[in-house]
Amino acid sequence: MSRQAIIGVIGAGSCDTAIETLAYRVGSGIAAQGGVLLCCGQGGVMQAACKGASEAGGMTIGLLPGTDKRSANPYVTIALPTGLNDARNVIIARSSDVLIAVGGQFGTLSEIAFGLKFGVSVIGLETWDVSQEILRATTPDEAVSLAFAQLQ
Amino acid sequence: MSRQAIIGVIGAGSCDTAIETLAYRVGSGIAAQGGVLLCCGQGGVMQAACKGASEAGGMTIGLLPGTDKRSANPYVTIALPTGLNDARNVIIARSSDVLIAVGGQFGTLSEIAFGLKFGVSVIGLETWDVSQEILRATTPDEAVSLAFAQLQ
Amino acid sequence: MSRQAIIGVIGAGSCDTAIETLAYRVGSGIAAQGGVLLCCGQGGVMQAACKGASEAGGMTIGLLPGTDKRSANPYVTIALPTGLNDARNVIIARSSDVLIAVGGQFGTLSEIAFGLKFGVSVIGLETWDVSQEILRATTPDEAVSLAFAQLQ
Amino acid sequence: MSRQAIIGVIGAGSCDTAIETLAYRVGSGIAAQGGVLLCCGQGGVMQAACKGASEAGGMTIGLLPGTDKRSANPYVTIALPTGLNDARNVIIARSSDVLIAVGGQFGTLSEIAFGLKFGVSVIGLETWDVSQEILRATTPDEAVSLAFAQLQ
Repeated sequence: MSRQAIIGVIGAGSCDTAIETLAYRVGSGIAAQGGVLLCCGQGGVMQAACKGASEAGGMTIGLLPGTDKRSANPYVTIALPTGLNDARNVIIARSSDVLIAVGGQFGTLSEIAFGLKFGVSVIGLETWDVSQEILRATTPDEAVSLAFAQLQ
Repeated sequence: MSRQAIIGVIGAGSCDTAIETLAYRVGSGIAAQGGVLLCCGQGGVMQAACKGASEAGGMTIGLLPGTDKRSANPYVTIALPTGLNDARNVIIARSSDVLIAVGGQFGTLSEIAFGLKFGVSVIGLETWDVSQEILRATTPDEAVSLAFAQLQ
Repeated sequence: MSRQAIIGVIGAGSCDTAIETLAYRVGSGIAAQGGVLLCCGQGGVMQAACKGASEAGGMTIGLLPGTDKRSANPYVTIALPTGLNDARNVIIARSSDVLIAVGGQFGTLSEIAFGLKFGVSVIGLETWDVSQEILRATTPDEAVSLAFAQLQ
Repeated sequence: MSRQAIIGVIGAGSCDTAIETLAYRVGSGIAAQGGVLLCCGQGGVMQAACKGASEAGGMTIGLLPGTDKRSANPYVTIALPTGLNDARNVIIARSSDVLIAVGGQFGTLSEIAFGLKFGVSVIGLETWDVSQEILRATTPDEAVSLAFAQLQ
């Protein structure tokens, strides 16, 4: 097994159905292109994205904020409880080869900021507009295409 | 000695003279009002603020990103090397009773985002304008006044 | 893809050939039984174990201390740079369903201590003898057998 | 205010009265010699040591595992919630100029291991005996004397 490309998905832990649908499709697209999905493994955007990836046969890694694997959503295949609470955001930003932000609140903003600081490309889908360095997408398919284009 | 109020100062690790002057005055003001200054203990805004606080007789705590106390600026009185690199930002946001952002780039944006997520008041002085929850100040004195007003 | 069992391998970052051979066989055995190997992804015991797992077709996750994926050994399939330096030890202990310690120095001792604190079973192969709770093995095969027996 | 010497005190979060008395006297001694006491700010050994230091007029810093300052014991003067759970152990070991271990269980063992790895002197008082590098003391006064001797 060779080194895997890691696509980080960030967004809010609870969100409306429209954002969930976007996240699901982002997850599907990542798995369809053979990427490993990295996220914090909880609800909202993360659960929808993991469900999308999982149902497309992909691998999903959850860097959980808490100390218990059982806090992972059911679509996480590799559950890694960090016990670090919000500091796991830093690891997600560092460990992703590219980040896709779907919606999101202040936690997502912190991850976008870290990604931009670390030189990790950030794809934005209905999310914070804090820098021209964020590559804006208007559909999940476009977000996934932009993400994989960054890997080359 | 009773429990001390902690005022976090965040900003860029290198900055121009105008921002340094603002940071120095913020540091002075914090010490003059008896606050403990918490920051990452390095250069730029942090060094200027620590210098201001130190020269006014105040205490300064540096939660350093690296592993060596010698990386602290000379105005840090309590040097705490974390070895966590950027994850120390999370601790600064969590441990401050109030945050004052002076200028700043993506690292500062991450700390503002964490502060707002954690419900810590954020005072902004020539910094990111990402939320109406940030209390905007136009002078260092106003920033310090707004900060101490949050403690009551 | 269903939830994967995570076997943590801990040990020194540089070691002699005898310990390397033990670690290689532990890695092989983990992969042969379908486990995912989690470690800090660097040299010594970790590189030997990852090589063993990789050559047996297994997946290896490296929670790297530094900030650069290129610091992972060549047998790491999922490289996650944490930037946390030694604090990644805590995550390895928390995220493993069972730990196998092969040789090791003070860093390994910290991971054994965290594992025992967190209630994660620790299998010991020529390593620290600080608690009767450590399950001692005398061969790599026995270590792997003891580890997988803990998962049931 | 010049750079302060940081004496880390580590031990179990709950302990019997005999160990509490030792910890109280260690805290008193640290404050009497002008050191700043660093610990995780909670109960047991930490509360007793902070009480000793506080009643002798000293400063105590609590690097708390949780996210709430109110979890600090009442004798902590600088309460820094990290939200990192057990990963705060790493910071305590790194940030201390010298460590004094009083009794202790697996968490303490992790801190001793980190201290020894980082080259921080460890003074042991009725604690783990895992290395000849630990400087053994038989009384609180001796522990404090040994600690301050390391600073010179």
